[in-house]
Amino acid sequence: MRVEVWSDINCPWCYIGKARFEQALAVFPHRAEVEVVHRSFELDPNAPRAARPVLPLLAAKYGMSLEQAEAADARIAENARAEGLPYLDGGRDAANSFDMHRLLHFAKERGRQAELLDALYRANFAEERSAFDEERLVELAVGAGLDGEAAAAVLADPQAYAEAVREDEATASAMGATGVPFFVLDRRLGVSGAQPAETFTRALEQAWESRPPAPLVQVGGGDADACGPDGCELLRP
Amino acid sequence: MRVEVWSDINCPWCYIGKARFEQALAVFPHRAEVEVVHRSFELDPNAPRAARPVLPLLAAKYGMSLEQAEAADARIAENARAEGLPYLDGGRDAANSFDMHRLLHFAKERGRQAELLDALYRANFAEERSAFDEERLVELAVGAGLDGEAAAAVLADPQAYAEAVREDEATASAMGATGVPFFVLDRRLGVSGAQPAETFTRALEQAWESRPPAPLVQVGGGDADACGPDGCELLRP
Repeated sequence: MRVEVWSDINCPWCYIGKARFEQALAVFPHRAEVEVVHRSFELDPNAPRAARPVLPLLAAKYGMSLEQAEAADARIAENARAEGLPYLDGGRDAANSFDMHRLLHFAKERGRQAELLDALYRANFAEERSAFDEERLVELAVGAGLDGEAAAAVLADPQAYAEAVREDEATASAMGATGVPFFVLDRRLGVSGAQPAETFTRALEQAWESRPPAPLVQVGGGDADACGPDGCELLRP
Repeated sequence: MRVEVWSDINCPWCYIGKARFEQALAVFPHRAEVEVVHRSFELDPNAPRAARPVLPLLAAKYGMSLEQAEAADARIAENARAEGLPYLDGGRDAANSFDMHRLLHFAKERGRQAELLDALYRANFAEERSAFDEERLVELAVGAGLDGEAAAAVLADPQAYAEAVREDEATASAMGATGVPFFVLDRRLGVSGAQPAETFTRALEQAWESRPPAPLVQVGGGDADACGPDGCELLRP
């Protein structure tokens, strides 16, 4: 079974929703058969590359005072802490996340996507230092088990994995996603938003029970060379 | 798109079929979107753990002379070499492959399954030294980028990843597979045996074109906390 999770590193509900999903997955009896894949979704593809403090941005965006923005962020922090997640008081920063998504696709190819995703969320939501500059991203990649030079090369080449990010976004859009986190189970069930863990449990159970029993459509003839319990083609006299 | 490939390391047509599939994948325009997963299939779950030379086994199994078994294996070797694969003259050995499959599941968890699978095939079909003893398996795991101690611990614990191997086999059986290699695309299309590369190309194209456009079934309400282009829940005043 495959669960694809569209999210953005700038998205606090993705950080929180991921923890809730993982709580459900941890007690799901068939968890060994569940593969989780990160999919890219940029909340603001036009965001500048240079990181800026989030609270003044929120205040400006929603026409709030800085105090109101702080209070709103504190309510999100409460939700995060209720799931056992660290959350930085006083606001994080935000920037264009395209490079992070490219790096996550590189990490996927190397089998280190889950590790890098955790590191990016942690760095963005729980650490003072910005997660967005190249030096920090390379450091986080190395911490996730990736080769630092290879990660730096990916960051230096704006085309690297750009196509993969855009394909993820096109797929999300084709499936009707307008916000994140957006969870898709075996391309059949969808869960929108940071739902409670029980909802994810229900979705996992439902996807498991409804695994396609439909017969496969065969491509190619049934007589190609193969091995079976009775032996291998050509080896049989 | 996901391609699951059921195979056994003891199966020469799996070794050859994998190469043919990879030829098709290498020129498939959407290959970046294709995820390939190895699935376990034991041709002979009751095979002894100690490795034995294959040619006398074949001769005994099919009531052939040793020369006839050699000639049959040479015909398979021709097929392998036609795909650019090395193949050991004079016969390899064979043994129970359960431990190899367990190790492949461990490698999957660490993002090194493709590397280990290649190493196992190569060791079994192209190298004099047996691929089946524990010391050699650990060496191959290390060569595939895995931690040697962790690989040895997996091999030493017969329960480790045993469930994952059995689940793969149950799934293959539920889908009607009786031999390998057995390729399944997005759990919708099946390809049996070491088909020519063109058949795999056709299957990839067919699976790509028929990707499910069906709307997702939503689990949970549409009002859970999320972030979208207009901002994040709780942050909006």
